[in-house]
Amino acid sequence: MTPNRPRCSVFIAVSLDGYIARRDGGIDWLHSVDMPGEDYGYKAFFDSVDVVLLGRNSYDVVLGFPEWYYGDKRCVVLTHRAAESLHGEEFYSGDVAALVQQLGESGVRRVYVDGGTVIQQFLKAGLIDDLTISVIPILLGDGIRLFAGGEPELPLKLESSQSWESGLTQLRYRAEKR
Amino acid sequence: MTPNRPRCSVFIAVSLDGYIARRDGGIDWLHSVDMPGEDYGYKAFFDSVDVVLLGRNSYDVVLGFPEWYYGDKRCVVLTHRAAESLHGEEFYSGDVAALVQQLGESGVRRVYVDGGTVIQQFLKAGLIDDLTISVIPILLGDGIRLFAGGEPELPLKLESSQSWESGLTQLRYRAEKR
Repeated sequence: MTPNRPRCSVFIAVSLDGYIARRDGGIDWLHSVDMPGEDYGYKAFFDSVDVVLLGRNSYDVVLGFPEWYYGDKRCVVLTHRAAESLHGEEFYSGDVAALVQQLGESGVRRVYVDGGTVIQQFLKAGLIDDLTISVIPILLGDGIRLFAGGEPELPLKLESSQSWESGLTQLRYRAEKR
Repeated sequence: MTPNRPRCSVFIAVSLDGYIARRDGGIDWLHSVDMPGEDYGYKAFFDSVDVVLLGRNSYDVVLGFPEWYYGDKRCVVLTHRAAESLHGEEFYSGDVAALVQQLGESGVRRVYVDGGTVIQQFLKAGLIDDLTISVIPILLGDGIRLFAGGEPELPLKLESSQSWESGLTQLRYRAEKR
């Protein structure tokens, strides 16, 4: 990591066969692990990041929610299509390494990299520092893959693993120095 | 499970991004978790099965080993191409459900289903009862997938999870009743 480069983190749920959503974007199968009062560490993670970075697909999904999902957290949407900023969100369409550099210069320490396409872009650019993967106990057989293939090889260090009564197992990895 | 149908089990290692081997079959990356005296439960599992069922690709790999890998364990190879039985192994090319039925009738209680193609065949036939998946801390970015897609949806029950110093995490699942 170059000096001042913010830490770039993934926090995401996948089926055992590696899908983050059904082919149509459906995440109904995630409800199998919904447990009262259990957020699997999401809030602590969310509180630890300074910026959420997401792709256009995720953004369009989030726009459909009854209220703005990210509160007053700084939010940058990676998109080539112009959009109106309704909640202070920013739009960006350039090189992701340059974006991360700019974010670092503006004082950002940790970035939440969200959405399959954006995560792949970051992996390809060698910019992911840690991944928290929640494995949901189901095989879907089809859908949108978290790791679509074509990412560079990346050795990881397991930092922790934890399982819950629901059958969710959360694996936390740090990228080994490249 | 129909009466007398043997339990069909998977015990396999995958990279975090879901590959069981590189595109060329390479499994060098598995060595990152080689630890003296540690077999991650393989021997206990192997001792618990009555038959190893493998595909032709795995069989051809195993034939290249200095000695016959499966000792005196009964071994059935799924293949359409005739081969010579050098170590008592049997060859089969028909319907897998019928094979499992025959194995049960011959007194087999548990089957070790090995090799990507065979596992997929069994998943498609609804014949997998449990899966032990050892997640290796690496992203490969390319290779032969354990879950290639097209398998039927299958809810699982997590039976246990365990992590080792090497970073390997082993997840044990039972297929929910269909």
